Amino acid sequence: MSKIKLVLATHNQHKVVELAAILKPLAPGVELVGYDGPEPVEDGLTYAENALIKARAAHQHTGLPAIADDSGIAVEVLGGAPGIFSARWSGTRDAVANRRLLLEQIKDVRPEHRGAAFVCTIALVGFVGEDEVTFTGIWPGEVAFAETGEAGFGYDPVFVPEGFEVSAAELEPEVKNSMSHRNLAIEQLASYLANT
Amino acid sequence: MSKIKLVLATHNQHKVVELAAILKPLAPGVELVGYDGPEPVEDGLTYAENALIKARAAHQHTGLPAIADDSGIAVEVLGGAPGIFSARWSGTRDAVANRRLLLEQIKDVRPEHRGAAFVCTIALVGFVGEDEVTFTGIWPGEVAFAETGEAGFGYDPVFVPEGFEVSAAELEPEVKNSMSHRNLAIEQLASYLANT
Repeated sequence: MSKIKLVLATHNQHKVVELAAILKPLAPGVELVGYDGPEPVEDGLTYAENALIKARAAHQHTGLPAIADDSGIAVEVLGGAPGIFSARWSGTRDAVANRRLLLEQIKDVRPEHRGAAFVCTIALVGFVGEDEVTFTGIWPGEVAFAETGEAGFGYDPVFVPEGFEVSAAELEPEVKNSMSHRNLAIEQLASYLANT
Repeated sequence: MSKIKLVLATHNQHKVVELAAILKPLAPGVELVGYDGPEPVEDGLTYAENALIKARAAHQHTGLPAIADDSGIAVEVLGGAPGIFSARWSGTRDAVANRRLLLEQIKDVRPEHRGAAFVCTIALVGFVGEDEVTFTGIWPGEVAFAETGEAGFGYDPVFVPEGFEVSAAELEPEVKNSMSHRNLAIEQLASYLANT
């Protein structure tokens, strides 16, 4: 794989850091470039549609191949919501308010029915001609009854991954990054970049 | 149908009034009795489970046949949520806060994707022995972009019923009560009471 410049179409610095940390060892030939162009309205109905909307905008603005991710938490008793609305669930982008609202909404739901999953879809646009591809990772677990842990971001403090008894915010970043939804999507992306 | 005394297991006065108004002409032999006994935890996963939990509690507490309803708004792009969590969607029982939150959450969703339905399930417990039965009514429509209207309660001001261009809170109570989700469920209940 020759040196590739990829625009990362996100203004969320947490995601840039996490994504770069995971992608670097998998695809050493990739140089991630930040994006500060216009942000399109994310009015898709799925993670893939929203990731594509963002990647397309960055690709059109810069002329470079662009990737964007859309991610969220899908809660079983909420029929997959918050889903694509996770980042603004409380009506604001305040992660603390978002996860507190989620805990309140399902506070009467028994432990055995709190199944959930972290979902991440990465879209790649303009890598081969104007081709558009998406990669999705899913990390199953459940919603805790209270926040724990200081690491991570977003819903990490209220999400207990399958096989663990601590929240994603209590995991070492290396542990989280080795198994997260974002990691699973990035592994697919890296493999595609390496083999295309 | 002989005279029947039914306990209505709800503390929501709006629902008592609306339900009584619809039921009276359909089942003149039924006398609705209020309930102020203990309120159980509604930890069911469906409208029917929660309605049964409430009706069972009232039946056990009073020894009379009891009915309870569980209702909510199911929004397509939210996978059926708020659903059974509608009454406390914002973390409180404040109907204004609940519908404002819903409008905020889906503010970027285009008009053609705002499909929703009002759902009402009524549970009847103890009418024939310890039998438990449920009746469900569904009123299709969509979520508006803003509140309109002064009548009704709950999500009425943000719900535009199919075939209308005004919200359920802009309909005359008689019009609403003739076609609502609650009406459809109560019609089934009245028919059951009359024929059992």
